[in-house]
Amino acid sequence: MHRCQPPDAVVWPQNVEQVSQLAALCYSQGVPIIPFGTGTGLEGGVCAVQGGVCINLTHMDRILKLNPEDFSVVVEPGVTRKALNTYLRDSGLWFPVDPGADASLCGMVATGASGTNAVRYGTMRDNVLNLEVVLPGGRLLHTAGLGRHFRKSAAGYNLTGLFVGSEGTLGLITAATLRLHPVPEATVAATCAFPSVQAAVDTTVHILQAAVPVARIEFLDEVMMDACNRHSQLNCPVAPTLFLEFHGSEQTLAEQIQRAEEIAGHNGASLFSWAKEAEERRRLWAARHSAWYAALALRPGCKGYSTDVCVPISRLPEILVQTKEDLKASGLTGTIVGHVGDGNFHCILLVDPEDTEEVRRVMAFGEQLGRRALALHGTCTGEHGIGLGKQQLLQEEVGAVGMETMRQLKAMLDPQGLMNPGKVL
Amino acid sequence: MHRCQPPDAVVWPQNVEQVSQLAALCYSQGVPIIPFGTGTGLEGGVCAVQGGVCINLTHMDRILKLNPEDFSVVVEPGVTRKALNTYLRDSGLWFPVDPGADASLCGMVATGASGTNAVRYGTMRDNVLNLEVVLPGGRLLHTAGLGRHFRKSAAGYNLTGLFVGSEGTLGLITAATLRLHPVPEATVAATCAFPSVQAAVDTTVHILQAAVPVARIEFLDEVMMDACNRHSQLNCPVAPTLFLEFHGSEQTLAEQIQRAEEIAGHNGASLFSWAKEAEERRRLWAARHSAWYAALALRPGCKGYSTDVCVPISRLPEILVQTKEDLKASGLTGTIVGHVGDGNFHCILLVDPEDTEEVRRVMAFGEQLGRRALALHGTCTGEHGIGLGKQQLLQEEVGAVGMETMRQLKAMLDPQGLMNPGKVL
Ligand SMILES: Cc1cc2nc3c(=O)[nH]c(=O)nc-3n(C[C@H](O)[C@H](O)[C@H](O)COP(=O)(O)OP(=O)(O)OC[C@H]3O[C@@H](n4cnc5c(N)ncnc54)[C@H](O)[C@@H]3O)c2cc1C
Ligand SMILES: Cc1cc2nc3c(=O)[nH]c(=O)nc-3n(C[C@H](O)[C@H](O)[C@H](O)COP(=O)(O)OP(=O)(O)OC[C@H]3O[C@@H](n4cnc5c(N)ncnc54)[C@H](O)[C@@H]3O)c2cc1C
Repeated sequence: MHRCQPPDAVVWPQNVEQVSQLAALCYSQGVPIIPFGTGTGLEGGVCAVQGGVCINLTHMDRILKLNPEDFSVVVEPGVTRKALNTYLRDSGLWFPVDPGADASLCGMVATGASGTNAVRYGTMRDNVLNLEVVLPGGRLLHTAGLGRHFRKSAAGYNLTGLFVGSEGTLGLITAATLRLHPVPEATVAATCAFPSVQAAVDTTVHILQAAVPVARIEFLDEVMMDACNRHSQLNCPVAPTLFLEFHGSEQTLAEQIQRAEEIAGHNGASLFSWAKEAEERRRLWAARHSAWYAALALRPGCKGYSTDVCVPISRLPEILVQTKEDLKASGLTGTIVGHVGDGNFHCILLVDPEDTEEVRRVMAFGEQLGRRALALHGTCTGEHGIGLGKQQLLQEEVGAVGMETMRQLKAMLDPQGLMNPGKVL
Repeated sequence: MHRCQPPDAVVWPQNVEQVSQLAALCYSQGVPIIPFGTGTGLEGGVCAVQGGVCINLTHMDRILKLNPEDFSVVVEPGVTRKALNTYLRDSGLWFPVDPGADASLCGMVATGASGTNAVRYGTMRDNVLNLEVVLPGGRLLHTAGLGRHFRKSAAGYNLTGLFVGSEGTLGLITAATLRLHPVPEATVAATCAFPSVQAAVDTTVHILQAAVPVARIEFLDEVMMDACNRHSQLNCPVAPTLFLEFHGSEQTLAEQIQRAEEIAGHNGASLFSWAKEAEERRRLWAARHSAWYAALALRPGCKGYSTDVCVPISRLPEILVQTKEDLKASGLTGTIVGHVGDGNFHCILLVDPEDTEEVRRVMAFGEQLGRRALALHGTCTGEHGIGLGKQQLLQEEVGAVGMETMRQLKAMLDPQGLMNPGKVL
C-alpha cells in the first residue's frame, strides 16, 4: 500500500564505527537517514519520503556473545531470527518472538514486533535487555549501560524501552541484547475447526481465563483457511479455525491438551487434529506463516495490505464478527488471521494497485477497522507499527498531550528531524 | 540512612483535578513538588531536600474499574497492593508484584518495584498497561491513551515505560492500569537448608535452567535465617536457606516439586520442608516479609540500611560468596536476603546512626557492593531505585551518554527541575 520511494543512496556499513561516522556525516549535512533491516516491515517504514541515505545494516550480521547460563545473547542488526535460532540449535535455548517473516532482530526491536508466540513469551518489548544505539548525531548510547545483561533493574529511566518500537526515528540500533528461553521439553500443535467465528474466539478467551499456558493460539477465518489449504496443501475443514501449540513436559502437555479440548468442545468444536511429530508441526506453522502468500494467491497480480489492530480480549468476539460483516459489505477480498491470544488480528486485503477506487476503499476499510479497535479501548496497531499509514489513528489513540510528549521526545533526540523523517509522528 | 528532610507543606488532594491544580500552582510559583505514596521507599525518595510541597496521595484510594475478563484493573494512587488483593479475593484474579511492604501501587510504579514473585510474574515494568500522569505543569497525560487496556501495542513511543521507575521526578501518577493474573489452582511452599551459600545459589541457577516455573525463590543466609527464626518463631536450621513457592495445577505441582527436590539434592541439600496448608504458607511468607524487622532486632536501637544489587544469575554465586567475606572483613552486622531467581539480593546492614564512623563504613560497604555488581555486568539497583543514595553508581552504570540522555528526558518533562528535585540524576 505504501508506494516505493527510493533513497538517494544506499550504504552498507560493516561495523558500528562506520554507522556512527555515517550518522555524524549525514547529520552535519542535513541529510535524512533511513535505517534498513530486512525490509519486511508492513507500514512503509523504510520508504525514503524525503530522500536521503538508506543505511542497510545487513552486512553487520555477527552474533557477538552468547551467555547460555544467563539466557541472553548479543546480536548485530543483520542477524535474523531464523539465523539466531539456527545458531542456538544445540544450546537448549531459543528466541521465541516470531513475526513469520525472517526479519532482522534489530528491525524487530525497531518495530516492537511480536507474532505467534507472544501470548506465552511476550513481545520484543519483553525480550530486550539492552541496546547499542547510534544516536542521530553519531554518538553511541548503551541503553542499559555497556555490556550489561541483568534480568531487572530500577536504575534511572528506562532508555531501552524508549527505543523498542521507535521505528528508526530516534536512532540506529547497532546491537541488541536479547532474552533467551529454554527450549520446551515437549511440544504439541493442533488445529481445531469451529462452527462460527464467535465460537473460535470464545474458546480463545476461555483458554486464557483458565490459565492454560498456551504457547500459540492463532485464528484463521474460513476464507484464510481455504486459501492456506490450497497454497500449502493442507486439508483442514474450511471453517473458522484455531491453530494451537502447547509447550511443557510430557505430563503438563497432557493436562493442557485435555483442558483445551474440553473448552473447545464446550464451544461446539468438532474436529481437534493433533500434530505431535516435528515434521507435521513444521508443515502446520509453515502454512500459517505463508498465510500472507496464500492470501495473495487469491487474486493473482494484486497487492496485499495487512491491517493490524489489538483490543482487550473480551472485545475480540464483537470486533471480529463486525469485521467479517464490514468485509462482506465492502465487497473487498480479504482474509482474517491473527494472534488472538493477545487480542491482536489482521485483515489481509487484496487490492489492484491500478484501481484507484479500490485502493481508496481498502484504505477506508483499514481506517474504519482502526477506529473500531480504538472505540473498544484497543490500539490501532498491535505489532506492525505506525510508519506512514497510521499517523492519524495514532493521534486519535493517544490524544493531544500524548502526541505532544512523543513530539518532544523526537525533538530531544533528533532536533533536526533527520532520522527516518515522515514516520510515526 | 537518608536523613529525614521534611517538606514545607503537605497536602492531601482528593482527586486528579486537585492534583493537577496543585501541580500547576507549585510550578508557576517555582515550588518543588514531592509525590508521596506510602513512604516505604528505601532510597530517600520522599525526602524534601529542597523543601517544597509534599503531595500525599493516600486519600485517593478508589479502585476505579475492574475488567475481570481482560485481566486488568485501574487503581488510584492510594490503593496499596494488599488492599487490591483483598478487593480481588473472590474474582479468581490477583496482582502478584509484592515488595513485602504494603506499598501503594502507584508508588510501586514510581520505583519500578518487584519482590518475591517477579521471577515468575515479572516486575512492575511488566505489569503496567497504562498510566494517568499529572505532568509538572499540571497537564494530564494518559501514557497509552485514555481508558485503553490492551495487552500489546506498537503505536508510537512507549510512554508508559518511561514513567515506570521514574521515582516521582517526571510527574505525579494519579492512576495505574495494572495487569492481573489468574489465581493459581494450587500452591505449595517449601524451605530448604544448604551446606553452603554456593550450594543454595547453584540450586537456584539450576532450577531456572531446567525451566521449572518456580513462582518464588528467595535466599536467606544463615544470619538472616537465625534472625527470622527468633523474630517469627520459626525453627528452620540455621544455614543458608531457600524459601520456594510453586504455582500450578495439582499435577504440575507434583512435577515441579520433584524436579526442585532432585536439583537441591544434587547440590547437597538435606532438609526439604513442605508447607502445603494455606496457614503454614502464610506463616512462612510473613516471616520472609518480616526479614527487615528480624534484622533490626539483631541490634536493638540501631537503624537498618538495605543495599540492593542485581547481577546476571550466573554471577550470583561469586558475588554472594564475596559479599559474605566483605561483610566479615568489615566488622559490620548484616544479613543477606534476596530474590535470587532474578539475580537480585540485599544486604541489610545494622548501623548506630550516632556513630558517624560506622555510618561511613556502611555507606562504603554499600558502594563497594554496588561496584562489585557493576563489574559483573549487573546493576546497582534491582528494585529499590536510585533516590538520593546511588546517583554516583548510576553514572558508573550507564555512562556519560546514558546520563546525558536521562538528563535530557528530565529537562524535557520538567524544564524547571521542580519535580522531586535532587533525586535520581
Ligand atoms: C509475511 C509477513 C508476515 C509478518 N508477520 C508479522 C507478525 O506476525 N508480527 C509482527 O510483528 N510483524 C510481522 N510482519 C512485519 C515485519 O516482519 C516486522 O515489522 C519486522 O519487525 C520488520 O523487521 P525488518 O528487519 O524487516 O525491518 P525493516 O522493514 O527493514 O524496517 C522496519 C522499520 O524499522 C526500522 N529499522 C529497521 N532496522 C533498524 C535498526 N537496526 N535500527 C533502527 N531502526 C531500524 C526501519 O527504519 C523501519 O522504520 C510480517 C511481515 C511479513 C512480510
Ligand atoms: C520492609 C520493606 C521491604 C521492602 N521490600 C521490597 C522488595 O522486596 N522489593 C521492592 O521493590 N521494594 C521493596 N521495598 C521498598 C518499597 O516498598 C518500594 O520501593 C515501594 O515501591 C515504595 O512504594 P511507596 O508507595 O511506599 O512509595 P514512597 O516511599 O511513598 O515513594 C517512593 C518514590 O516514589 C515516588 N512516588 C510515590 N508515589 C508516587 C506517585 N503516585 N506518583 C509519582 N511518584 C510517586 C516518591 O516521590 C518517591 O520518590 C521494601 C520496603 C520495606 C520497608
